[in-house]
Amino acid sequence: MTELSRRRLLAGSTVGAAATLLPWATSAPESEARPARGTLRADVIVVGAGFAGITAARELKSHGLDVLVLEARDRVGGRTLNHKIDSHHIVEVGGQWLGPEHDLPDRGLGDPSNYPTDDAVTGQSQIWKLARKMGVPRYTTYNDGLYVDYRRGTRSTYSGRIPTDTPAGAVEAGEAILAIDKRCQSVPLDKPWAAANAVEWDSMTVETWMKYGDSFSNQPFTGLQTADGHHLLTLAVEAVFSAEPRDLSMLHFLFYIHSAGSFGSLINTDKGAQMYRLHGGSQTIAIRAAKTLGHRVHLSSPVREIDQTQHGVTVKGPGFEARAKRVIVAIPPTLAGRIHYSPAMPALRDQLTQRIPMGTVIKVQCVYDEPFWRKDGLAGQATSDRGPVRVTFDNSPPDATDKHGPGVMMGFIEGTDGRRALSMSHAERRRGVIESFARYYGPKAKKPVEYVERSWASEPFTRGCYAGYFPPGVWLDYGHALRRPVGRIHWAGTETAEIWTGYMDGAVRSGERAAAEVRRALRG
Amino acid sequence: MTELSRRRLLAGSTVGAAATLLPWATSAPESEARPARGTLRADVIVVGAGFAGITAARELKSHGLDVLVLEARDRVGGRTLNHKIDSHHIVEVGGQWLGPEHDLPDRGLGDPSNYPTDDAVTGQSQIWKLARKMGVPRYTTYNDGLYVDYRRGTRSTYSGRIPTDTPAGAVEAGEAILAIDKRCQSVPLDKPWAAANAVEWDSMTVETWMKYGDSFSNQPFTGLQTADGHHLLTLAVEAVFSAEPRDLSMLHFLFYIHSAGSFGSLINTDKGAQMYRLHGGSQTIAIRAAKTLGHRVHLSSPVREIDQTQHGVTVKGPGFEARAKRVIVAIPPTLAGRIHYSPAMPALRDQLTQRIPMGTVIKVQCVYDEPFWRKDGLAGQATSDRGPVRVTFDNSPPDATDKHGPGVMMGFIEGTDGRRALSMSHAERRRGVIESFARYYGPKAKKPVEYVERSWASEPFTRGCYAGYFPPGVWLDYGHALRRPVGRIHWAGTETAEIWTGYMDGAVRSGERAAAEVRRALRG
Repeated sequence: MTELSRRRLLAGSTVGAAATLLPWATSAPESEARPARGTLRADVIVVGAGFAGITAARELKSHGLDVLVLEARDRVGGRTLNHKIDSHHIVEVGGQWLGPEHDLPDRGLGDPSNYPTDDAVTGQSQIWKLARKMGVPRYTTYNDGLYVDYRRGTRSTYSGRIPTDTPAGAVEAGEAILAIDKRCQSVPLDKPWAAANAVEWDSMTVETWMKYGDSFSNQPFTGLQTADGHHLLTLAVEAVFSAEPRDLSMLHFLFYIHSAGSFGSLINTDKGAQMYRLHGGSQTIAIRAAKTLGHRVHLSSPVREIDQTQHGVTVKGPGFEARAKRVIVAIPPTLAGRIHYSPAMPALRDQLTQRIPMGTVIKVQCVYDEPFWRKDGLAGQATSDRGPVRVTFDNSPPDATDKHGPGVMMGFIEGTDGRRALSMSHAERRRGVIESFARYYGPKAKKPVEYVERSWASEPFTRGCYAGYFPPGVWLDYGHALRRPVGRIHWAGTETAEIWTGYMDGAVRSGERAAAEVRRALRG
Repeated sequence: MTELSRRRLLAGSTVGAAATLLPWATSAPESEARPARGTLRADVIVVGAGFAGITAARELKSHGLDVLVLEARDRVGGRTLNHKIDSHHIVEVGGQWLGPEHDLPDRGLGDPSNYPTDDAVTGQSQIWKLARKMGVPRYTTYNDGLYVDYRRGTRSTYSGRIPTDTPAGAVEAGEAILAIDKRCQSVPLDKPWAAANAVEWDSMTVETWMKYGDSFSNQPFTGLQTADGHHLLTLAVEAVFSAEPRDLSMLHFLFYIHSAGSFGSLINTDKGAQMYRLHGGSQTIAIRAAKTLGHRVHLSSPVREIDQTQHGVTVKGPGFEARAKRVIVAIPPTLAGRIHYSPAMPALRDQLTQRIPMGTVIKVQCVYDEPFWRKDGLAGQATSDRGPVRVTFDNSPPDATDKHGPGVMMGFIEGTDGRRALSMSHAERRRGVIESFARYYGPKAKKPVEYVERSWASEPFTRGCYAGYFPPGVWLDYGHALRRPVGRIHWAGTETAEIWTGYMDGAVRSGERAAAEVRRALRG
């Protein structure tokens, strides 16, 4: 047994002991936290009660600082959110999965040769630490049976990681993924713009790379030749970024993959970022972590203005004004750009916030009496060349079996499909989703007990998921403004993370980093 | 004499008669317009007193509507601004040039075959109409003598439009421009995403096109082969977009060029977008036009919130609240995205505003006792492969001759150079600019009387110039949300124009279009 698997087992059994509880059900309603009113004071203010903000606040509090958290929504958890489907079960309508927690050796960061290669994973150590502290146990994502692939009007099933009904396409996509894994290791996580090929990669979209390849070292990639290889890689890009290959800078794509260790680490269920789920839902971690901050978390308190002087900061919103020595803004760059700052933001920082749009995804789920696809020997995962849903997962609760339910089929409407679906009516989307599910899992999919959807781009305090992404040219010219504090203002949020950027783990890391910055500044 | 040249001559002589005045000097100080205070009412509110907003307000007023204009800055004119250099002269630190006014036949818009080809220009008819109404006369941009080209440490001079010290590069850049002019005509101005090649072009950056070309119809372009061809085209792209070829979607690039008729129309001085200057400065048009709106223009009145109900809109800012039936938001998309809307913006519109960043340019000018380069037989225009200033113009006032001054040498620090220069001190930028000018025009450039700079990205109510641009993928998935009204909110601004987008003429056209929408809605 390796050290890694020992640790995994240990972690599993530790949290497993608590799994008989339904921890979300024991959480007090979040609405207890009142909106900020009047004039408030603290050592440090944190804007945003997602994983980044809550982590930063907890870190600072643990060092004796008085911290105030201002959250615009009426709940904590950022881009995670539980939705009750019956008296015993929730589904997550936002981020939900965790990957393995295997730690990276610290020294590995600056030196690509220390990185795991092949499909080894970079561990989500920081979110796991938090999950464990909060007593939120995990279970393994349901992944037994065959996968469905739907292409050119035909449905087939397969096992393994890549659909093999078109062997040439499968081989080509596999080769492209190997080429990507090789390249991504040359992109420094702390400064992607310093990669030897940074100018070439930040000058092209991922679509262009898929078409034309690049001149990387002595192992050039010459582009995908088959339509099936292109289709498979496109699907993987959409699933990871909720954006199209044409939207993304190739340099950003490689940075993001390096940040997670490998492409496989991002797209796989087994040993990848979709490996684990959490009893009571991912949001439970945030709800419990926020509780440790007590009455210092204010909900429904949107920050509209941040003023700073030599002596401190004043953070303003409707009906409140809060003063502190420092502030951590723990929201995505595009939303941070909508706060009014006085004095005005430096030009480079402001223009950065104009350039990191949020992805587009509508997460859709159908609740059934039972997970009927399991009886058919299917894992509930599908890939497809036809929308609106091109990727599915079995998202049934942990106590579901093929004998009793509820069964939950989940799908993502991503990128262009997501943008088109934004203009549809609820009924049209519902119909399209159910048609997609029936295409992959048969007529039983046509009669869900409930249809649940969440469009994150429609949420005023989120405006897109999973994360902000970098179009071409942004890393090169604006990258160094991403984390650099502006006076007394520090920046957190998963978009600012070096490791597992875009994920809950990255959010936690960004909160830790911003808290460390503030502590240094306050000591200084 | 053609109809076109007859009209030009006529226009020239009409406005020429007023040229003995210094119209800017007769304008009352703008600070007379007070900030909005308390509760205000109007039929229509216009947000922004640039050319788009002022035009929309004048149009509506001329039809008997009561219009209120709310401008965040303490002046009108948007991205145009006069700067006084002595008691008789100004220089413009923002947009300044107008191109020829030749009208397009209306029916030409939808049908590429009706478009001018070669280097024919699409006329800036609408801004000329306004300039004439406001009595602002024009003069021809100084353009006599040789141009300077600086490359690989060597300075040379040339005449004609493309530096010929590297003939292969000149030929190649010329061929690329012909290919661009051909392609741009296939991009419909009202819906660029409907071009036959839209997906291919919106999937690549301009840099990628320069490298790999495309598959357009039966005339594929295979990419630039020479470093000099690449350099020349890059310089032209930077000069037009104040962004790098890697920042821009090829589809957007072609749309923008089509919007002006041809690439030559954008980059040329003679018969191009830099052909004319205005006595008293371009801002004078806006100042005078705003005066016709009287006390209904409020300066220093930033709009922070727009609420709409079935019955009307409420527009709020610090210390004021204004109610109307409709509102026209006449500011760039990225700034429009920073207003707080209630109810929240539809997701597609919101995500659009996350995706149209402003270009980056610092406009720099040195004032000298005389335009000494004229005596050396130089036009004052330079192209260079070395920053910070890679493009210059003679920007001396109309009464300057080679015998008396003042002489004004102007340069742009654009794209990556501009972004880097944002982090420099004023003294560092000044030194770099003067070194650039001395490199092109000799040691006399080293002793300016005054150094004037304007960084538009640093302005809180502008945040970049010349205009917002579209990275890859944005036109395809978000284009139809650009102009579409949201309830009682209409969108104007040069970024929304179909003709001469990015220019003053486009701004005027967008104001006319938005005003027409509002009138239809109010009649309806």
